[in-house]
Amino acid sequence: MMKAAVFLLFALLVPAYHTGAQCIIDSVVDLKVQAAISNIVSANLAKAKLLCQDVSARGDLVTCPAGYKPTGCACGMGCGSWDIRSDSICHCQCSGMDWTAARCCRVGLE
Amino acid sequence: MMKAAVFLLFALLVPAYHTGAQCIIDSVVDLKVQAAISNIVSANLAKAKLLCQDVSARGDLVTCPAGYKPTGCACGMGCGSWDIRSDSICHCQCSGMDWTAARCCRVGLE
Amino acid sequence: MMKAAVFLLFALLVPAYHTGAQCIIDSVVDLKVQAAISNIVSANLAKAKLLCQDVSARGDLVTCPAGYKPTGCACGMGCGSWDIRSDSICHCQCSGMDWTAARCCRVGLE
Repeated sequence: MMKAAVFLLFALLVPAYHTGAQCIIDSVVDLKVQAAISNIVSANLAKAKLLCQDVSARGDLVTCPAGYKPTGCACGMGCGSWDIRSDSICHCQCSGMDWTAARCCRVGLE
Repeated sequence: MMKAAVFLLFALLVPAYHTGAQCIIDSVVDLKVQAAISNIVSANLAKAKLLCQDVSARGDLVTCPAGYKPTGCACGMGCGSWDIRSDSICHCQCSGMDWTAARCCRVGLE
Repeated sequence: MMKAAVFLLFALLVPAYHTGAQCIIDSVVDLKVQAAISNIVSANLAKAKLLCQDVSARGDLVTCPAGYKPTGCACGMGCGSWDIRSDSICHCQCSGMDWTAARCCRVGLE
């Protein structure tokens, strides 16, 4: 009779442990993960900023620093005709250009 | 006496399992979640880039592709007077405009 | 003999619980965390947008709203010569400037 009781104890405890534990783990993890992730992702995304700087050079060309993209160009002599080359270089088109400037931006964490 | 021992075994094990397990799960999950989230969020945010392209058209208007926003406009005839319509269209203001160009950007994962 | 069986039961169950549970917890958490984080991070990053607005003012200066950065400037009188001051102000350089406009953007969740 005692052997039967101990066997029964094993028979009940072991599967209960395996299935019950996973259920508890599942739901605890679900709740904790959802809350933690939402907080951290929001906090991190809130830190995502547009970081910009300006560069200028003599002549009709100027290149943004590595990692930055030109979002607009300014030109000497009041000129407003420009184009962007290779996604990184501001080119002012008016003849005899004295200076060219680029507004250069990237997404970054401040 | 044996029945009492088996009962005691149950009485001790079951609550210990329920409370002790949750404490272990809590702290393990906390540690693992914090570390995993920080790594993944950082890695994903590092992939957030400013993606840009240029469009141009004859006349005094040009529209950015869907999902892109104009960050600056360029105009023919050296003109630097422009405005942005409906958050998506570059409009060059000088009379007799021959071409209009838009620098169009969006945030994306590279 | 019964005491020995009960002792053996304890001796087997307690360490098995402590080591086995942590292994199960570890791998369950790992899988669940990875999946949950990837989904949430992707969903949140997909919401990261370039939010832009335009401001203009009489004269040769205009300031972007707080939190926004100028990505390009437009000037009256067809002028295309400008610069950005303090990472927030568009300045049109041609003399007798009648108006100055700024294209102002930030990264945000829509």
